[in-house]
Amino acid sequence: MTKTNPGRFFEDYQPGEVIPHAVPRTVGAGERALYHALYPARHALASSDEFARACGLPAAPLDDLAAFHVVFGKTVPDISLNALANLGYAEGRWLRPVWPGDTLSATSEVIGLKQNSNGKSGVVWVRTEGRNQKDEVVLDYVRWVMVRKRETGGDAPAPVIPELKPALAAGDLVIPEGLDFTGYDFALAGEPHRWGDYAPGEVIDHVDGVTIEEAEHMMATRLWQNTAKVHFDATAREGGRRLIYGGHVISLARALSFNGLANAQMIAGLNGGAHANPCFAGDTVRAWSEVLDRAETAAPGVGALRLRLVATKGGAPGELRDADGKYLPDVLLDLDYWALVPT
Amino acid sequence: MTKTNPGRFFEDYQPGEVIPHAVPRTVGAGERALYHALYPARHALASSDEFARACGLPAAPLDDLAAFHVVFGKTVPDISLNALANLGYAEGRWLRPVWPGDTLSATSEVIGLKQNSNGKSGVVWVRTEGRNQKDEVVLDYVRWVMVRKRETGGDAPAPVIPELKPALAAGDLVIPEGLDFTGYDFALAGEPHRWGDYAPGEVIDHVDGVTIEEAEHMMATRLWQNTAKVHFDATAREGGRRLIYGGHVISLARALSFNGLANAQMIAGLNGGAHANPCFAGDTVRAWSEVLDRAETAAPGVGALRLRLVATKGGAPGELRDADGKYLPDVLLDLDYWALVPT
Amino acid sequence: MTKTNPGRFFEDYQPGEVIPHAVPRTVGAGERALYHALYPARHALASSDEFARACGLPAAPLDDLAAFHVVFGKTVPDISLNALANLGYAEGRWLRPVWPGDTLSATSEVIGLKQNSNGKSGVVWVRTEGRNQKDEVVLDYVRWVMVRKRETGGDAPAPVIPELKPALAAGDLVIPEGLDFTGYDFALAGEPHRWGDYAPGEVIDHVDGVTIEEAEHMMATRLWQNTAKVHFDATAREGGRRLIYGGHVISLARALSFNGLANAQMIAGLNGGAHANPCFAGDTVRAWSEVLDRAETAAPGVGALRLRLVATKGGAPGELRDADGKYLPDVLLDLDYWALVPT
Repeated sequence: MTKTNPGRFFEDYQPGEVIPHAVPRTVGAGERALYHALYPARHALASSDEFARACGLPAAPLDDLAAFHVVFGKTVPDISLNALANLGYAEGRWLRPVWPGDTLSATSEVIGLKQNSNGKSGVVWVRTEGRNQKDEVVLDYVRWVMVRKRETGGDAPAPVIPELKPALAAGDLVIPEGLDFTGYDFALAGEPHRWGDYAPGEVIDHVDGVTIEEAEHMMATRLWQNTAKVHFDATAREGGRRLIYGGHVISLARALSFNGLANAQMIAGLNGGAHANPCFAGDTVRAWSEVLDRAETAAPGVGALRLRLVATKGGAPGELRDADGKYLPDVLLDLDYWALVPT
Repeated sequence: MTKTNPGRFFEDYQPGEVIPHAVPRTVGAGERALYHALYPARHALASSDEFARACGLPAAPLDDLAAFHVVFGKTVPDISLNALANLGYAEGRWLRPVWPGDTLSATSEVIGLKQNSNGKSGVVWVRTEGRNQKDEVVLDYVRWVMVRKRETGGDAPAPVIPELKPALAAGDLVIPEGLDFTGYDFALAGEPHRWGDYAPGEVIDHVDGVTIEEAEHMMATRLWQNTAKVHFDATAREGGRRLIYGGHVISLARALSFNGLANAQMIAGLNGGAHANPCFAGDTVRAWSEVLDRAETAAPGVGALRLRLVATKGGAPGELRDADGKYLPDVLLDLDYWALVPT
Repeated sequence: MTKTNPGRFFEDYQPGEVIPHAVPRTVGAGERALYHALYPARHALASSDEFARACGLPAAPLDDLAAFHVVFGKTVPDISLNALANLGYAEGRWLRPVWPGDTLSATSEVIGLKQNSNGKSGVVWVRTEGRNQKDEVVLDYVRWVMVRKRETGGDAPAPVIPELKPALAAGDLVIPEGLDFTGYDFALAGEPHRWGDYAPGEVIDHVDGVTIEEAEHMMATRLWQNTAKVHFDATAREGGRRLIYGGHVISLARALSFNGLANAQMIAGLNGGAHANPCFAGDTVRAWSEVLDRAETAAPGVGALRLRLVATKGGAPGELRDADGKYLPDVLLDLDYWALVPT
């Protein structure tokens, strides 16, 4: 019997099954510092305990995407070790901030299955929950992946396709307890633009670019305990290039978006996302955003902006797809999320 | 209206204006560990809580240069985003140690202005203060930069040239409260050399060399939230090489100086400094020091040494300028500072 | 008088001399995070405070190898600055976990000396102890190195060859106070294999590979304050390649061994080890283990496995030596250690 984990194949998933993921993880001051070293992160709420306290929180939470990456990383050995493609995200919600000292663990429920017509693979949908040491859910989201079958052919299971919202409604968002932007300090945050200054349809060029190194994306991906071999093993792909974890590009683009969206302090919802093209070391990543929607929230001084965040390695802001609706070759990421912004 | 920060141009500075810089930052155990991973830092006072306590401090402070970099980084979007050159430093003083958990913010006062005769740029002098969460100044220093004008020509403002000390006097230095080197453990610190063992004129070869990687200087510069694009974007310069943040070279040289100056435990003053030549990944950095002056202080067992710290990518210790007084091409840094040393 | 440390030569060691090493070091949350960023570490006990508490410990200790590296790093300036080769390890014991906030220091006693017949070098054996701020020994081990003589020839000192155990007996191991695996959660740990599932002779292929970057091994080695110039200075060796610190390969292999040995939670003893061939950036490191022995311990639910951990840059699991007993050229590390595993 081999003792190593071969990963699950399409045949190994059953609708309704709840998979507990291994290796809980305590996060803290070290992860915060590394997040700032690996990404040009400047949003004040995750940078300063004092700024966070002035916004009604007890301290600066871990960056929302760092929480996402830790939870996501736990799912990799059970969900995507044999994945051929990471197809999408939906209904992601940040339910509670993650504080330094918290210990995160994760479970995933299989909510959909559909074998591909080629008989070689299938699509698996899971809803993943990340929990803290008090067993409170801090984050949940749906993702679906294309997974290899162990054996080609055979009877396909009855397809189960989950109904997923194309986007969360503003009312679906959970605002962190205590969050209050009525005394928000725009000068300390870095930009004067309020929620009402952003209009749907507006495109923001985040201007700056970052050229990625192999050491950086590997350190990030390891920090999240994501073990997918394509990110680390130069011999795993033709040409000897390591494929960069899609989440690294998400964090990079989000950090770059500070320049124009410095007040989009927290991520509250993930509506969807596509890793449009692979990213490799040497690529210079830029980002632009499009304002998709605006909504009020019940929290004092807190509005929500629905934003499209696009990471590219070329091309102009606003350019996303070709005439056939296909992503342009320089587009790396197309992410649709809700951010919390002072009104 | 664009929402991104275009940076200030020469015309945007007024003498006497105080500019509050954005994005306060809480520092702690993570920054300390990263500082030790990015630089070969070994000075015992910033390495060990126990050693620091034996020297009268409540714990190991953050490395003095880490505090400088965090404060400096905050100023970049307002002071040097459109800078053509970082011309100099003066009158830098470390007024209070920075402790893990402190939150730093920064303001700069414009103290000088002089348009260049070409009408395309000008020199701006600022005095920057870094403060902790108790609004105590932890650090102040003057720097001056050459900044692009928005439009060429036009009337030049009346020049204002600040009077700056060529060097701080020993009496200008502020010794951290409680610092006491009377029970100093030279064996634990790593070298037997006391303050009195260093004579003005003495040149110390720090021997070791470190070859710099792109990932390292970018992680460091991001950690300080320094956003200047030349440090990150390989497409921003001809030849595709990123310009290394001058402060990275300062920290590298200071860490290398342990070998011969292991007891120069704290930096108390910055008299001046020049980034003599640019530094790029692949350069192997070495350092040498020259003892410039010696002074007593009022603190028990604590003397001050004024030191020239030179970083190079070649050449012999002591070689600094050519016959015309120009820095030799292999000289990267010429820094003049005061360090606190046991007597 | 030069003020820099020239390192000790063979003539400078006396049997029985105890050498206190410099630069105590406080470790904590930052080192823990960096350890996880630099190595694909996933063993749950060092990853999660909650998991560690469920195993009877007050919190997650620092990774056992991180503790080793910090102690080892302190010895470098006194033991191996002029070493020609790191020849071996023996009798290594982890006596107490290292907790975040602990300050480590180290001393070494010279326990053996033997001049080589060429008169140019000799072998020095030292027993190193790492201590925490309470002066408790956390780790001790023997290593021996070949050190250059200051001057060729001269009378050789009387050889002193220490008697060293070829391997620690299970009874020599010290189990951390309170460790209790009776309520061990195999699902959270990541694998179902218990102590009794491992049979002597069994070979486990850990499957995954990691391609090493210069920035990573230098950051790791600096974090341990290991100053040996061959690891940092590309000009120090022909061909411009930096030699990777052997301990970096140990940590990499141990982290990779999670896949098949996820329940080998703690390292309790180091029986021996050889850095069989040098490792350089660009190498893709893989690992395999061989179960050498099995023993019970007095701690509840805790068994011990003696394991051979081999790191390679090629070749098949189980392949170690050629017909003449020489390590195969692709073998980087052959380590013999005791791990604690739930029964």
